[in-house]
Amino acid sequence: MATILLLSGPNLNLFGTREPEIYGPDTLDDMVGDARDAASKAGYDLEHVQSNHEGDLVDAIHEARGRCAAVIVNAGALTHSSYALADALAAFDGVKVELHVSNPSAREAWRQTSVIAPSVTGVVAGFGRAGYRLAVEATITKLEDER
Amino acid sequence: MATILLLSGPNLNLFGTREPEIYGPDTLDDMVGDARDAASKAGYDLEHVQSNHEGDLVDAIHEARGRCAAVIVNAGALTHSSYALADALAAFDGVKVELHVSNPSAREAWRQTSVIAPSVTGVVAGFGRAGYRLAVEATITKLEDER
Amino acid sequence: MATILLLSGPNLNLFGTREPEIYGPDTLDDMVGDARDAASKAGYDLEHVQSNHEGDLVDAIHEARGRCAAVIVNAGALTHSSYALADALAAFDGVKVELHVSNPSAREAWRQTSVIAPSVTGVVAGFGRAGYRLAVEATITKLEDER
Amino acid sequence: MATILLLSGPNLNLFGTREPEIYGPDTLDDMVGDARDAASKAGYDLEHVQSNHEGDLVDAIHEARGRCAAVIVNAGALTHSSYALADALAAFDGVKVELHVSNPSAREAWRQTSVIAPSVTGVVAGFGRAGYRLAVEATITKLEDER
Amino acid sequence: MATILLLSGPNLNLFGTREPEIYGPDTLDDMVGDARDAASKAGYDLEHVQSNHEGDLVDAIHEARGRCAAVIVNAGALTHSSYALADALAAFDGVKVELHVSNPSAREAWRQTSVIAPSVTGVVAGFGRAGYRLAVEATITKLEDER
Amino acid sequence: MATILLLSGPNLNLFGTREPEIYGPDTLDDMVGDARDAASKAGYDLEHVQSNHEGDLVDAIHEARGRCAAVIVNAGALTHSSYALADALAAFDGVKVELHVSNPSAREAWRQTSVIAPSVTGVVAGFGRAGYRLAVEATITKLEDER
Amino acid sequence: MATILLLSGPNLNLFGTREPEIYGPDTLDDMVGDARDAASKAGYDLEHVQSNHEGDLVDAIHEARGRCAAVIVNAGALTHSSYALADALAAFDGVKVELHVSNPSAREAWRQTSVIAPSVTGVVAGFGRAGYRLAVEATITKLEDER
Amino acid sequence: MATILLLSGPNLNLFGTREPEIYGPDTLDDMVGDARDAASKAGYDLEHVQSNHEGDLVDAIHEARGRCAAVIVNAGALTHSSYALADALAAFDGVKVELHVSNPSAREAWRQTSVIAPSVTGVVAGFGRAGYRLAVEATITKLEDER
Amino acid sequence: MATILLLSGPNLNLFGTREPEIYGPDTLDDMVGDARDAASKAGYDLEHVQSNHEGDLVDAIHEARGRCAAVIVNAGALTHSSYALADALAAFDGVKVELHVSNPSAREAWRQTSVIAPSVTGVVAGFGRAGYRLAVEATITKLEDER
Amino acid sequence: MATILLLSGPNLNLFGTREPEIYGPDTLDDMVGDARDAASKAGYDLEHVQSNHEGDLVDAIHEARGRCAAVIVNAGALTHSSYALADALAAFDGVKVELHVSNPSAREAWRQTSVIAPSVTGVVAGFGRAGYRLAVEATITKLEDER
Amino acid sequence: MATILLLSGPNLNLFGTREPEIYGPDTLDDMVGDARDAASKAGYDLEHVQSNHEGDLVDAIHEARGRCAAVIVNAGALTHSSYALADALAAFDGVKVELHVSNPSAREAWRQTSVIAPSVTGVVAGFGRAGYRLAVEATITKLEDER
Amino acid sequence: MATILLLSGPNLNLFGTREPEIYGPDTLDDMVGDARDAASKAGYDLEHVQSNHEGDLVDAIHEARGRCAAVIVNAGALTHSSYALADALAAFDGVKVELHVSNPSAREAWRQTSVIAPSVTGVVAGFGRAGYRLAVEATITKLEDER
Repeated sequence: MATILLLSGPNLNLFGTREPEIYGPDTLDDMVGDARDAASKAGYDLEHVQSNHEGDLVDAIHEARGRCAAVIVNAGALTHSSYALADALAAFDGVKVELHVSNPSAREAWRQTSVIAPSVTGVVAGFGRAGYRLAVEATITKLEDER
Repeated sequence: MATILLLSGPNLNLFGTREPEIYGPDTLDDMVGDARDAASKAGYDLEHVQSNHEGDLVDAIHEARGRCAAVIVNAGALTHSSYALADALAAFDGVKVELHVSNPSAREAWRQTSVIAPSVTGVVAGFGRAGYRLAVEATITKLEDER
Repeated sequence: MATILLLSGPNLNLFGTREPEIYGPDTLDDMVGDARDAASKAGYDLEHVQSNHEGDLVDAIHEARGRCAAVIVNAGALTHSSYALADALAAFDGVKVELHVSNPSAREAWRQTSVIAPSVTGVVAGFGRAGYRLAVEATITKLEDER
Repeated sequence: MATILLLSGPNLNLFGTREPEIYGPDTLDDMVGDARDAASKAGYDLEHVQSNHEGDLVDAIHEARGRCAAVIVNAGALTHSSYALADALAAFDGVKVELHVSNPSAREAWRQTSVIAPSVTGVVAGFGRAGYRLAVEATITKLEDER
Repeated sequence: MATILLLSGPNLNLFGTREPEIYGPDTLDDMVGDARDAASKAGYDLEHVQSNHEGDLVDAIHEARGRCAAVIVNAGALTHSSYALADALAAFDGVKVELHVSNPSAREAWRQTSVIAPSVTGVVAGFGRAGYRLAVEATITKLEDER
Repeated sequence: MATILLLSGPNLNLFGTREPEIYGPDTLDDMVGDARDAASKAGYDLEHVQSNHEGDLVDAIHEARGRCAAVIVNAGALTHSSYALADALAAFDGVKVELHVSNPSAREAWRQTSVIAPSVTGVVAGFGRAGYRLAVEATITKLEDER
Repeated sequence: MATILLLSGPNLNLFGTREPEIYGPDTLDDMVGDARDAASKAGYDLEHVQSNHEGDLVDAIHEARGRCAAVIVNAGALTHSSYALADALAAFDGVKVELHVSNPSAREAWRQTSVIAPSVTGVVAGFGRAGYRLAVEATITKLEDER
Repeated sequence: MATILLLSGPNLNLFGTREPEIYGPDTLDDMVGDARDAASKAGYDLEHVQSNHEGDLVDAIHEARGRCAAVIVNAGALTHSSYALADALAAFDGVKVELHVSNPSAREAWRQTSVIAPSVTGVVAGFGRAGYRLAVEATITKLEDER
Repeated sequence: MATILLLSGPNLNLFGTREPEIYGPDTLDDMVGDARDAASKAGYDLEHVQSNHEGDLVDAIHEARGRCAAVIVNAGALTHSSYALADALAAFDGVKVELHVSNPSAREAWRQTSVIAPSVTGVVAGFGRAGYRLAVEATITKLEDER
Repeated sequence: MATILLLSGPNLNLFGTREPEIYGPDTLDDMVGDARDAASKAGYDLEHVQSNHEGDLVDAIHEARGRCAAVIVNAGALTHSSYALADALAAFDGVKVELHVSNPSAREAWRQTSVIAPSVTGVVAGFGRAGYRLAVEATITKLEDER
Repeated sequence: MATILLLSGPNLNLFGTREPEIYGPDTLDDMVGDARDAASKAGYDLEHVQSNHEGDLVDAIHEARGRCAAVIVNAGALTHSSYALADALAAFDGVKVELHVSNPSAREAWRQTSVIAPSVTGVVAGFGRAGYRLAVEATITKLEDER
Repeated sequence: MATILLLSGPNLNLFGTREPEIYGPDTLDDMVGDARDAASKAGYDLEHVQSNHEGDLVDAIHEARGRCAAVIVNAGALTHSSYALADALAAFDGVKVELHVSNPSAREAWRQTSVIAPSVTGVVAGFGRAGYRLAVEATITKLEDER
């Protein structure tokens, strides 16, 4: 059974308690649950790693090389500054999806540039909790296209 | 039956014949067909307008006000310069999704800024032909969330 | 009887229904009516063209050459990007007034640069519906100064 | 009888003698006279303060708080650099109009940014001497709209 | 007989009457006539489309795909902002020449960047009316080189 | 008894009446009173100068040279543009503290650069009325450290 | 007894041995000791965390949510690049103070922009070792103001 | 006897006591004395105005119009920000010389742009006290050239 | 017989051996031969100077003043940095044509700005070897237009 | 026996498997082996730390203070963003060498600025695997120069 | 007898024939003659080198090291781009004066930055032919001050 | 015996006498001697060209094509501006090494961008005199790798 790695970056563990007018009332567990359900419905396994440490996210991508079919990453604030994550994603051969709960382009100027976007296959942003399920479906569609 | 307006901007009528290494082998009709199927499967109607004229796209959004539940827009090159489209989208009360077949962030510098992104609900980019179906599903998810 | 051409750019047909907290409750018809009244009170004819198409606005300015004494243009979002309009205005020999209902300088950064401003005689901005009447009066004052 | 404060910034006392090809042949007294006539015709009092000192202009706005209904300011070169004036205008509750005799956007690059524009109600620029009368009329229109 | 499409963008229909100190006394008909003569002398057909609408120019390039051997485009002010034209030219397989009557680099700053230049084969600028004939000759030279 | 000069720049005389949601309900007199109490409790004299004139603030710093032990300056909007104040502070040998009632970094972009900051010993910002007392205490701590 | 969290970012563990001409001869222990004394004198508890890992600082802020009344953060070099810290501070409901031993504005250009400043209540910078005590006093003042 | 106006801007009254490693040991009186001697040796009168107020410098230039043959201005820090001074100099018909004691281009970045330089005849910078005499000689040379 | 000076800047002597995928297989001699033929066919003499030294190119333009009717310059990399060449061309009274074998706008960013373009009559770029003949023809057309 | 610390930043553990067309076929172990051999041949000990965590790299530099004679750092993507590393290196008294396997200046724009370069003694970049040996030799040369 | 080296950069040999409305009617010989007279009147020798080659100017400065007391350089267009000249001047121990006939700040944007200015003692600009004599006098004054 | 060309750009002939605190006490002859020794020890010939003329350096690279195996270039100030050198290096097929005695990134801002770096194989910077030997060793290592 193929595996999808779902990564959650800094501060995303606070979903549900942090700025709910932006991120909504749902917790990260709710969102990961949706992602897992979508994956398992399509016959995929989903692993989830959340960390506030850039290095942990890079490590997790490395460990997924050759083992996972795809990486979905909501890098939080690291989206806008982490070239290390961008390099790690570039070194991962598989489908790579950038995910955001809010629509960063409708917020502060610094959220409008993603340094990881040039390294990914596609982007899903702005759909709130539903984005987790949609990103999994998009990932699986790409995986099956590529077969 | 609620209606979703799908807009295709300049040069998208060339899908399938234009730079297939970037945009893939499928035609716009193929893509719109997928979108229509996804909509109808969920009980929605999908209208499609393609134009190389910014004004036609603005007109279509205006005509959709109060009549359509959502707009999905692949604005092509206008994504990066049309404030008129951005204003038209801002004046549309409903779900608004920005769609791209390729991942613009992995291409020329000028494709990395979307002037319409601040006016939309969410973005789906980089999933090729599959993006059309995914954008419809994302749109419908948001419409049903908001009920 | 001398004629003044009044041009309304993209999305201005939505006045009264679009973001009323910015643009107020009045319709474009209300505003054009005020402009026409002000013109006719001073013995001038006023023609109005609204279009969401840049090309239509350029065409209208061309058709006014040698036939109209002045052009008043509220170019909407095209104010900030249309060098074609700027060139068309530069090629019109007569009084040219840039008009805005809101005060663009108090809004988003991209609304703070007008690419047509270097081609006009003067600017009237921020006076809401009243701006239409004021722009006509300003135009007529300039026309009569120049005699 | 409600009062309008008219402020003239640095170098405007030279109108009529300074670069007449840009500013025209009329003196500041001529222009203020026109403004006063327009005000008094509508039942308003007009006070005028000219100074080459930024601090005097700020002081005058402060003294007008609670006493005057509106401020019209032609800040001259301070338009482009005086955040102190911008803050003083922001602290004035009433109609605030930015006025220019020439059209700054058609001149040097540094004249194309107004740091006070985000603090005003509206702008009247480029109508030469007539701008003084027009600015008063625009001001009064706004005052009467707000009643 | 191979065909060359000649496109003229916004405001170029005014040649001969607009700013003759920049564009010279000749009309667009004069210039197109020269181009047609140069083409026919070399055994080529020349079609001409002028429009103030970006969309019409994009449409014309699309209709020329597979039917015309080359496109010569004087895009006027759209040269400096139309990514849609740039994309349309990129999707045209053939010789593509950017043409200007004046030398844009010797004029305003915004005329010094051509967003379509990266999509063309070559550029001919600054030779006034003669540029039309020269652009046709350059185009034919390239067409014959490529055989 | 050593003396501390407290300077208040343009518009600060309006504290308590100007944008109370930003600056709070307290008047400048309240704030200066707090500062004076803090100074006198530690055996220091405090002089206060408020002016809307940059030149007055520069003059006051000059007059303090050799006479006062420290300068605390809330330069208001001049913080962001007055190189003359920066030079005056650089020429003052003693403790120099930059003070703000609000946190300028959380406001408009232009408030995020202080041109006087490179000339001061330290900064106290964002503590509202309490900042006056804290700045005096910080100043006295530095004065006593340097003995 | 209410608790204040004091955070020290990368390289601050070197105080006393690193560039003493900039940071002074005192160790971080000396500084934290001062902060703890000031807190306990006012009846507050102070916890201190130092780490060279951005993720540890984010974790510590998360763990303080709902448990600590305030956070004082000297983020060292992360001040200028860590949007993750900025987001963590934004998600902390309480008093947040940015602290620096030196005056960053008087040093290299990159030290003049704080990306965390928009997320804090206030800033204390440039007072050397004394800044620790002053920041605690400022924090407590704000806490007591808000009761 | 023709008169030359010598203007000294903010902080220049501190020459001799302020940063002598940059400005040297001589006082402004020494420098003005040299300038006066040079003027009188050539049969010219020299008036001197020093002020820390931008408005006073503008006023002085206005008062010199039609009365003085030339203005020499060492605007101090206002050199780099005062468009009001630039406009006042532009409105003065005569020789205008910008003078600096130090070489601003060898100092901070903000001292490398002079906003008044486009309005002057010539510049003398970097010669210390001797610059005053040299600027007077340069001014007189130009005055006599123009006769 | 009128003379045209053809200048070739740094590295152009390598044509035919340097990056043939960009510059093609032809040598500079081939290209100059074509240019000479085109000139002589029209009754003009063509002189050619190639140098890797900016100063030699400036010298050659000086020596052409009053002796040659036109200068055609392919300045190579100096196109993008040599203000000295720009000044030399500005001081040459005659037709001046900027020539490039490749289309610089389709290459690195630094090749997209020509500092000499504001000093020339016209530009011919992107036509490979054929550009030499076309530039001569364009030059002669301009020379004969101006008679 | 003196010790050299060799640091490898994020993603460098992937050498040999990641983008071999850029980084070559050799593993990090191969490279570190070469470095160790070069060190030991000269009588030096070499310690190696690889981490994807910025904090670990900072910690390692701290632990090397007073214990190691030199630090060689290939910071990977952190080269371009980590001011914390720059500060840690600045606080290390000894030889500090920045090392890159590829030549970052020939790659993406963001790889062309090194924020750590101002803190190091020297740079060795672009020599592939051989760079490790060369950096060690360069380091030892500097260490022996300084004796 | 001490020697002053006067350097004239590219295109200055054209003085008197090039753009006389900017540079005046006098030749370089006239100007150098004035400089020589001024030098010899004060007991100094003046050598003059004009070249259109940057390298010649650098060579001349090198040859003047230890032999000449001062260098006066009018670098023409190289003023704005030649870091090699800036470095050569920095390596010359003596008085160094930057000279311009026109006032570059009143011309094109690129003439407003001098890359050599940070390496010189002082600047004399805008005095036309008289600048040569004034620069020599300024140089000698500095030389005699430094004795 | 294979030959390495060593190029020294403007002002490098002054090593040993110019700013020894930056460049050290050794002469260029010392450094070239070290380079020659290192080359001959490995069985290579080393030729050295020093010139203050950009054109000479370009000429030397051209003459080395097909004759030398590698070029080592310390371009001095031309590093930061000479696109002609960059193009010449790009046209040289062989190992190309950029060498600096100091670490340019630790100096003025303009020294932090190398326009030739994208054209070279590798960079050695900051090792003082030792850099010459190290660059030769690095060059030979690359040459032997490529066999």
